[in-house]
Amino acid sequence: MQPTDIWMNRALALAVKAIGLSDPNPRVGCVLVSADGELLGEGHTQAAGQAHAEIMALRDAAARGRTVKGATAYVTLEPCSHHGRTGPCCDALAAAGVSKVVASLPDPNPLVAGQGFARLRAAGVRVETGPGAAESRELNIGFFSRMVRRTPWVRLKIAASLDGRTALNNGASQWITSEAARADGHAWRSRASAVLTGIGTVLEDNPRLDVRRVPVGRQPDVVIVDSRLEIPVDSLILQPARRKLVYCAAHSQERQAALEAAGATVVHLPGPGGKVDLAAMLSDLASREVNELHVEAGHKLNGSLIREGLVDELLAYFAPKLLGEGRGMANFGPLTSLSEALELEFFSTERIGSDLRILARIPGRDSFH
Amino acid sequence: MQPTDIWMNRALALAVKAIGLSDPNPRVGCVLVSADGELLGEGHTQAAGQAHAEIMALRDAAARGRTVKGATAYVTLEPCSHHGRTGPCCDALAAAGVSKVVASLPDPNPLVAGQGFARLRAAGVRVETGPGAAESRELNIGFFSRMVRRTPWVRLKIAASLDGRTALNNGASQWITSEAARADGHAWRSRASAVLTGIGTVLEDNPRLDVRRVPVGRQPDVVIVDSRLEIPVDSLILQPARRKLVYCAAHSQERQAALEAAGATVVHLPGPGGKVDLAAMLSDLASREVNELHVEAGHKLNGSLIREGLVDELLAYFAPKLLGEGRGMANFGPLTSLSEALELEFFSTERIGSDLRILARIPGRDSFH
Repeated sequence: MQPTDIWMNRALALAVKAIGLSDPNPRVGCVLVSADGELLGEGHTQAAGQAHAEIMALRDAAARGRTVKGATAYVTLEPCSHHGRTGPCCDALAAAGVSKVVASLPDPNPLVAGQGFARLRAAGVRVETGPGAAESRELNIGFFSRMVRRTPWVRLKIAASLDGRTALNNGASQWITSEAARADGHAWRSRASAVLTGIGTVLEDNPRLDVRRVPVGRQPDVVIVDSRLEIPVDSLILQPARRKLVYCAAHSQERQAALEAAGATVVHLPGPGGKVDLAAMLSDLASREVNELHVEAGHKLNGSLIREGLVDELLAYFAPKLLGEGRGMANFGPLTSLSEALELEFFSTERIGSDLRILARIPGRDSFH
Repeated sequence: MQPTDIWMNRALALAVKAIGLSDPNPRVGCVLVSADGELLGEGHTQAAGQAHAEIMALRDAAARGRTVKGATAYVTLEPCSHHGRTGPCCDALAAAGVSKVVASLPDPNPLVAGQGFARLRAAGVRVETGPGAAESRELNIGFFSRMVRRTPWVRLKIAASLDGRTALNNGASQWITSEAARADGHAWRSRASAVLTGIGTVLEDNPRLDVRRVPVGRQPDVVIVDSRLEIPVDSLILQPARRKLVYCAAHSQERQAALEAAGATVVHLPGPGGKVDLAAMLSDLASREVNELHVEAGHKLNGSLIREGLVDELLAYFAPKLLGEGRGMANFGPLTSLSEALELEFFSTERIGSDLRILARIPGRDSFH
């Protein structure tokens, strides 16, 4: 492996630490290396409003008593050029004397992409791009989606028996998958900006849908699709101190007031058939800085999201069991020809405890630019 | 690796070559090695009525002009002690001067187990057992099942979408999985003694259910569950020259005569509700020397086999697509509690072309002794 790749891999590993912390900002890592190949400082993006990766790396070098004059900065995304709490990162790097920046990718926001690089070059800093590009984009797929498509990256999480049953006919679904799979599911929840579910699941299972089984810096927001505003204000999902968004299609001053008193935001987005306009909801969520949207809903809402072409990938846990009859994974169709199937591509398959985790992506959904 | 393991692995690799050839005899390999560790001859079981592995290895050594006096025979199953076409293998080994036999396992037939070893020892041949035992048993799971349980090993093969749909509501099912998965399915058919399906599949898809996509020494028998003897005599499945068994619950002299004229054997095994007694059918198939039974049926017959506890393992191909509504994998239930699920254990998961192949076994089903 070339030194560039070694250092960029280290920067990517740092970026991973920003999962569940930096949201809605991207997960970025930065490593400062001297001309003779010595590590001077490193860091990753902190919580929103706090320091970016480059600033953390500069502070780390200072704390170690090291100068970064003539150093190279390996950073997994273009240093920002805007004035935030700590000033533009590109200016900070140039001011500290960094002579070269190797960045994985330009900023995905078409309005600012390249400006950080331009400012660096104007300050006499050499700029290279490319190493770690695919990994950095994948790690920030939700941030890229929001910046480029103006919608979140939508991941459908489903737990099912091997014959694709997510609940018995009587609704029983706790638990089909193992403890290990559920803990893994919490890790995926923790990387999402928001967890979305439907009123059916709230009324049937009264879930909390927070992150409990893994340590986390922030709880994801919760989003509830509740066309008729039926959610009880004492639902467990409304309890934790986190952002709570309820999307409805029917007005009800009284219920809205009760939900707002419980700390929820009610958004009225009526679509056809008395249902919430799900596409408009995704745009609204992006405008509220939701990058990755983690859907844990029942077969009906899953089916609606698929029917409307709003799903990007599927995160499915399969338990080694058959349930025979029962509810399916996504209630869309009936199709009349196999050619109408929703085509996927297996992205990864992994054994999680006694279960199987499959990440499958709809081909082309991740190729936005 | 120890020399014993190296030679036994070679014998096991030879045994694999007997798949699709030796049925209903077990798949056995034999390697003859001189005292100074030189390969003298090797072979595997031939078609039924022809030479066993040990005889093939002795012939191979003779053809190479080598004596096997003082040699060690590595063989993946106890040499037979009965008089077949070539005489008992244990006598042949002893007569040729083999001084030691290393065998993976005793013969599973409780009536003859150990007799081959006893005869070898009586002739002054040293006997060791154990190396390769698990692999040899797995390779011959159907033969062991027939010998010990007096029923075939029942493998349910299912091709489905990732959401567990095996057909659309209108019956369309060709093809859900890819060309590569279907070729792999033919390889699994080829190792079965018989392929079983139901009248529903015959009437709907008119399949041939023979082995076409891989080379094969013999075509598996075909077994059709056809309670009311509705199968048309010109069905494609009845065309090839191979054993054809039709199990029914209703008598019809006329139809039976027509099927027999078409080369089929009709077996009358009525169970409750005008259905074929499936458990009795399995016993009957074992008595007809069926080792591995490969089931390619619809969701109804799959459900009946599961409901009656007759399935040993599941061979499932999942295509990376969702079909929403449609027919399930196995129509049993409805269950009232998740604890009633049919529990499985993942045995292997592998990507086959664009699809995923999962072999899952019902815990404990393979532990018969």
